[in-house]
Amino acid sequence: MTDIIASAKTLRPMLEPRAVAVLGASDDPTKIGGVPLRYLRDYGFAGKVYAVNPTRDTVQGMPSYKSLAEIDGPVDMAIMSVPAKLAIETAEAAAKKGVKALCTFTSGFSEVGEEGRRMQRRLADIARESGMRILGPNCLGYFNARTKLYATFSTSIDHGQPRVGNVGLVSQSGAFGSHCFVLGRERGLGYSACITTGNEVDITVAESLAYLAMDDETEVLACYMEGCKDGEQFIQALALAYERGKPVVIQKVGRSEVGTEAAASHTASLTGADKVYDAVFERYNAFRAQTPSELIDIAYMLSGMRRSGKLPGGNKVAVATISGGAGVMMADAGEEAGLDLAPLPEKTQVYLKELVPFAGTRNPVDFTAQVYNDFSVVTKNFDAIFRDGGYDAVIGFFSSLLYSERMSQKVLDALLPVRKAFPDRIFALSVIGPEKNRRRFEEAGFLLLDDPAKAMQTIAATLEIGRGFARGRRTTPVVAKAPCLQRRPYNEIEAKALLAKAGVPALPERLAASADDAVKAAAEIGYPVVLKIVSADILHKSDAGGVKLNLANDDAVRRAYDAILSACTAAYPKAKIDGVLVGKMISGGVEAILGVQRDPVFGPIVMFGLGGIFTEIMKDVTFRLAPFDEAEALEMIRSIKGFPLLDGARGRKKCDQAALAKALANLSVFAAANRDVLASIDINPVVVLPEGEGVAALDAVILTV
Amino acid sequence: MTDIIASAKTLRPMLEPRAVAVLGASDDPTKIGGVPLRYLRDYGFAGKVYAVNPTRDTVQGMPSYKSLAEIDGPVDMAIMSVPAKLAIETAEAAAKKGVKALCTFTSGFSEVGEEGRRMQRRLADIARESGMRILGPNCLGYFNARTKLYATFSTSIDHGQPRVGNVGLVSQSGAFGSHCFVLGRERGLGYSACITTGNEVDITVAESLAYLAMDDETEVLACYMEGCKDGEQFIQALALAYERGKPVVIQKVGRSEVGTEAAASHTASLTGADKVYDAVFERYNAFRAQTPSELIDIAYMLSGMRRSGKLPGGNKVAVATISGGAGVMMADAGEEAGLDLAPLPEKTQVYLKELVPFAGTRNPVDFTAQVYNDFSVVTKNFDAIFRDGGYDAVIGFFSSLLYSERMSQKVLDALLPVRKAFPDRIFALSVIGPEKNRRRFEEAGFLLLDDPAKAMQTIAATLEIGRGFARGRRTTPVVAKAPCLQRRPYNEIEAKALLAKAGVPALPERLAASADDAVKAAAEIGYPVVLKIVSADILHKSDAGGVKLNLANDDAVRRAYDAILSACTAAYPKAKIDGVLVGKMISGGVEAILGVQRDPVFGPIVMFGLGGIFTEIMKDVTFRLAPFDEAEALEMIRSIKGFPLLDGARGRKKCDQAALAKALANLSVFAAANRDVLASIDINPVVVLPEGEGVAALDAVILTV
Repeated sequence: MTDIIASAKTLRPMLEPRAVAVLGASDDPTKIGGVPLRYLRDYGFAGKVYAVNPTRDTVQGMPSYKSLAEIDGPVDMAIMSVPAKLAIETAEAAAKKGVKALCTFTSGFSEVGEEGRRMQRRLADIARESGMRILGPNCLGYFNARTKLYATFSTSIDHGQPRVGNVGLVSQSGAFGSHCFVLGRERGLGYSACITTGNEVDITVAESLAYLAMDDETEVLACYMEGCKDGEQFIQALALAYERGKPVVIQKVGRSEVGTEAAASHTASLTGADKVYDAVFERYNAFRAQTPSELIDIAYMLSGMRRSGKLPGGNKVAVATISGGAGVMMADAGEEAGLDLAPLPEKTQVYLKELVPFAGTRNPVDFTAQVYNDFSVVTKNFDAIFRDGGYDAVIGFFSSLLYSERMSQKVLDALLPVRKAFPDRIFALSVIGPEKNRRRFEEAGFLLLDDPAKAMQTIAATLEIGRGFARGRRTTPVVAKAPCLQRRPYNEIEAKALLAKAGVPALPERLAASADDAVKAAAEIGYPVVLKIVSADILHKSDAGGVKLNLANDDAVRRAYDAILSACTAAYPKAKIDGVLVGKMISGGVEAILGVQRDPVFGPIVMFGLGGIFTEIMKDVTFRLAPFDEAEALEMIRSIKGFPLLDGARGRKKCDQAALAKALANLSVFAAANRDVLASIDINPVVVLPEGEGVAALDAVILTV
Repeated sequence: MTDIIASAKTLRPMLEPRAVAVLGASDDPTKIGGVPLRYLRDYGFAGKVYAVNPTRDTVQGMPSYKSLAEIDGPVDMAIMSVPAKLAIETAEAAAKKGVKALCTFTSGFSEVGEEGRRMQRRLADIARESGMRILGPNCLGYFNARTKLYATFSTSIDHGQPRVGNVGLVSQSGAFGSHCFVLGRERGLGYSACITTGNEVDITVAESLAYLAMDDETEVLACYMEGCKDGEQFIQALALAYERGKPVVIQKVGRSEVGTEAAASHTASLTGADKVYDAVFERYNAFRAQTPSELIDIAYMLSGMRRSGKLPGGNKVAVATISGGAGVMMADAGEEAGLDLAPLPEKTQVYLKELVPFAGTRNPVDFTAQVYNDFSVVTKNFDAIFRDGGYDAVIGFFSSLLYSERMSQKVLDALLPVRKAFPDRIFALSVIGPEKNRRRFEEAGFLLLDDPAKAMQTIAATLEIGRGFARGRRTTPVVAKAPCLQRRPYNEIEAKALLAKAGVPALPERLAASADDAVKAAAEIGYPVVLKIVSADILHKSDAGGVKLNLANDDAVRRAYDAILSACTAAYPKAKIDGVLVGKMISGGVEAILGVQRDPVFGPIVMFGLGGIFTEIMKDVTFRLAPFDEAEALEMIRSIKGFPLLDGARGRKKCDQAALAKALANLSVFAAANRDVLASIDINPVVVLPEGEGVAALDAVILTV
C-alpha cells in the first residue's frame, strides 16, 4: 500500500496546481487548445494561467509565450494540445521546465499504429526519467470542481458547471467519462474531481482512484474502466479506498464475447479476463455497475449517505407508499435484488391500522392517498417504521407529487422531523418532479430516485457496499508455509500428493508397477479399490481404458491391472507409463470442481463449482483472487446456485462444507505461494463427503509455466 | 374474439362522449369533484359539460343542476365524485337517466371491508342490469388526449398536458398509472388515451386494452396490472391486439413472494399464479417489462417505430459510436440482451477504414471523435452500415452532443439522408441533451435513448416484439379428439395408458396379480424388466420398497414380486393394492419432467423441465398455456438452460426432441380438452431417448378436481 500512496501523492500538482500553462493555446475559444484556456480564465480558477503559442503574441486576449522556457515562474501543470509530431519535444521541454504534471490531449499515439506506439514509449520514458506525471495522451483531461480547474476540452462544462460535491469520477474513456459526468450532473450529483486517463502512458485509473481515496473532499469513487495492465497497483488502489472508508462503484466493460473483442480492438492491451475483475471487485468491496445510469444512481445514493454519516451495515428495508401497486412492484424488485423486506412488528402494524384503517401495514406499507387528508399521518407512519422496524433503509413512494408546489411543501414538512430523528439511516423517496422541488428534498437529506423498481436495486447496491465495510477487511492468509511447486511435469499421484501436503486431502493411494504390487497395495488400502493408469501422456484415461472402478478382491485387481496396461498400450503406444495407481474406492458425497487459473494481470484465480453439468452446462462457478481464508471460501461455496446440493437438498446428507472451505482456502494459499511457477490446477472431481467426513480429491492435474 | 370486440365497443361512449356530467361537482377547482370540471371547461373539450351539485346554484361559475334528471338532454358519460354512502343511489340515477358510462372516483368499496364489498356487488348489479358501463370505483379516471377529455382528478394534467400520440396506457392502479403517465410525458411520449380501472367492478384492464386495440389512433398498448380474474377475457384482449398488429408491453407486478403477498392484501382477489402470466404474455406476444422506466422506454420505441412503419422482424443490430468504450459497453449489453451483433461484411469494413483509418469497423463501429472534423464521414458510416449490413436496427452513440446547438444541427444534417434512405429500420441514438434539441431529432424520425446500455435492452425488447409479429399467429391445435378424463382416481397403469392414448408414449407394461403372472408378463415384454407396486395409497413407492429395477430372469422377477408385496404391506398395512406393474427396463436417455397445473384464472398450464436437480434446485422450468402445437413445444424445450443436455452436450447422443415436442403438445391438448375435470398431471420422469427412438413416460400421476 505504501507504493500506491506514494505514487498517488505525486498527482497532487496535477489536481492542485498553483500555476498552469496551456501549450498550443488557441485563440479560438471553441478549439481543443482554446477551450481549457477559456475555462481557466473565465470560470474562476484562482491560480496563475499562461498561454503558450509560438506563432502568436496574444491568445484570447492574453499575452502568449513563445515557449514554456520563456515563462518567468514555476509551472506546476501544463496542458498539452499540440499536434502529435510536436508532442515529444513539447513534453521534453515541459520536463526541462520542471513541470510536475502534463495533461496530454494530443492523440495519434498507440491507438494509431507502430509509429504512434513508438512515440508513446518515448513519452513514458520522459515521465519516468523526469518524474513529471503525464495524463493521457489521447485523453479528455480532468477537472477539480472545487478550484474550478477545468483542464479539459470537453464542451460539457459549457452547458453546466458541476455542482461541487463529494463524488470523484475516474474514466479511462474520454467520451464516455464526459457522458457519465453529464448524466451525473443532470442527476444533481456533486463532484469533487473528474479524471480521464486515455492511453495511460503514465497515470492510471488505479492511481487516480488512489489519489481521490486520499482526497478529503472525495467521499465516493465512481469509475469507468476497460481494463488495467498492473493488477497489483489496481488492487492496492481498491484496498486503499476500502481502508479510507470510501465506497467504490465501477463500470468495467468487456464482459461479453463481442464486448471483449471490441475492447481488445479498442484498447489493444492485455487487461485480464473479465470474470477475474468480478473476483477483484468482490474482494475489495467495489460494486460493479452494469449501466452508466446504474453507476450514477449508486454514486448518487452513496454521495448522499456519506454526507449524512456512515453507510448502514444491514439489509433490512421498508417500503411505504401512497399506491398499493407501487408497493407490490417495489416488493418484487426488492426481493429480486436480495433485500430483506422484513415485516413490521405486530404492534406497529396495529398502530398503523389505527392511523389508516384500510392501509397495508406489513411491509410494504400502503398508507394510501388518504394521507393527503392529514399529513401528520405521513409523519406518524414513517416515524413508526423507522422507530420500530430497525430498518437500514426506508423508501417512500410519492409518485409525481413534487410537481405540485403545495403538496411538495406539505410532504417535506411532514417528513423532515423523521429525517432528523433518524439521521443515520437511508431515507429515500421515489418521486418525480421539477428539479427545484427535488433539490429542496435533497438539501433536507432525502435521497430521490425516480423509478421505484430501480430505486430498490440502487438501495440494494448501497446496502451491499455498506455490509462490505461493516464486515471489515478480509484477512489475507500467510502464504509462506505452503509447499513449493517445482517447474516440472507432475503425474496424477505427484499432483495429489503435493496438493495433500498443501491441505487439499486425497484418499490413500499407491503406485503399482506390477499386478502383484497392485494386489499388495489394495490389501493395504482396503477393498474396494480403483485402478488408474498413471502417465503424463494419457490425458483421457477413461477413454483409453485406463480406469477400473469398484474392484472387490485380489483377482479383480489382477485382471484390471492387466486390462488397463494392454488397453493403454494399444491406445497410446508411445506413452511413457509411470505405473498404475491403486486407490481407495468411495461412493456417495457430492462432486465438486476446484481449479486455479493464472490471470496475466491479477495472477492466480481460484475457481469453485459443482461437477459435471453444473459447471459445464449451467456455468455455475465462482472465482476469487488467491489467497483467501476459509470464511471467504465458505462465501464462494454458498454463492453458487447449486449450493443446496451441498446443504442437504432432496433428502441428501448435508456435506462437509467446512472441510471443503478449508481445502479451497488451502488451494488458494498454495496457488498464491507458487504464483510465479503455476500455470493451472484442475482438481476434478473433489468428492465432498457428509458432514464430519471431509473431502477427497479424486483426480488432479497441475501445469506449470 | 367476438365477445371481447362486442364488449369493448360498449366503451365507446366513455372515450368519445358528446355530453358529460360531473356528479358531485365541487366549486373548489382543486378538489376531487372540482378538478375534472375545471379540466373539461378549460382544456378544450368540445362536448357538452354539465355540473351536478344539489347544494349549489353554480359551480366554478357554471350553472349547477340539482340532479342528473334535471338535465335536459342526453348524458353519455358521467363522472361520479360523491361520498360512498351516496354512490349507489347516484349510480342508479345515472342508469335511469340513460348514461352510457359512469366513471367512479368514489372510494370505500371492496378495499374497505364487508360493507364496501356489498356496495360494490350492488354497483356491479346496476352495471349488468342497465348496460351502463362503470369504470372504477376507487379509480383515478381516464383521459382521451385527442379530444381533451380529462375525466380524472389527477393533478398530473395541471403540470403538463400529454402530447397527443399513438400510445394507449391502461393501469389498474391509479397512483401508479399517473406515475407512468408522467414518466412517459417527461420522456416525450405521445398518448392517445389513458385509462385507470381501479376496483374493476365492471370495466377491466382487458376490455380497456381491447378498446384501444380497435382504436385507430392507438398503435401501441402499454399496461400496468396486478392481475385479472377473467383469464379468457384477458387472453381475448391480447389476441385481439395481436390480430390488429398493436404491440403490447405490460408491467405485471406480484412476481416475488413478498410482492405476491402484498398484491394479495392489496387487491384481495384470486388473480392466478404469476408465472402463468409469463406463459400468457409469451403466447400472445405481449412483452413483460420489469420496471416503469422499461415500460415507458419500450413504449417510446414502439411508438416511434409505428409512426414510421412496420416493426422489423429480425434480431440483427449494429452499434456505431464516437467512443470505443461506449461501443464495448453496448456490445456487452446487446449480447446479454440476446441481440445478434453480426460483424459488417469485409468490404464494408475496408471502406470504413478508408474513411477513418483508426476506426473500429467490425461491429461495434467506433468511428471516433474524428468525425467531428468532417461530418460527411458520419453520413457515409451510417449509410454503409444500413446498406451493407442488413441490420434490423442501428444505434449511434453521440454522448452529450445535443447540448451543443451547433453540433446538434451538424449531426442531424449528417444523419437525415440516412434516415430517409432506410425508413423501415430502427434508427436509434443514445445521446443526452436538452428537450428542444432531442425533439428535433425525434421529429426527424430518430429514436432517442439516454443510457447506452439500457438502449440495447430496449432495442432487444422491440425486436423481440417485432419477431413475434413476423412469426405469425400461433396455431391452436384442435382438442376435440383428445381422450376423455373421468372424474375418478387413476392408478399409475391407468394414468399412463390414458396418456399414451393421448399421445404421451409409455413402455410396454402389464399389471400382475401374482408372481406367476409377473413372470408371464416379463416373458411377453422381454427382459430386463422393472417391477413396481400399483396402489393409489402408496405415493412414495421407492421408500416403501415398492420398486425393483433391472430384473434379468424369471427367478429375479419371482423374488422381486414377493419382496415388493411384503415390504409394501409392512409399510402401508391399510393400502389398497391393485397389483404389481411389470414394465420394460430401459437405460440411457435424458430424464425430463412434464406436468400440468390448473390455474384458477387461466386453466391448464403445461410445465416442462429436465429431471431432478434441474427442476428442483435450478428451477430450470418453463410454462405454457394449454393447448399448443409442436412448434411451440419445441420452443419450450429449447428455452430451458439445460437444453444442451438434450442436444448432444458432453459427448452424449442428441435426444429425440421431435418426439418430446410431440408428447408435450399432445399433453397440452389432452389437458385443454379435459380442463373442467383435470386438477394436475405429473409425468416424472419421461425418458427422452436418442434421436429417432422416441420418449417414454416412466411414471405418471393424474389428479382430477
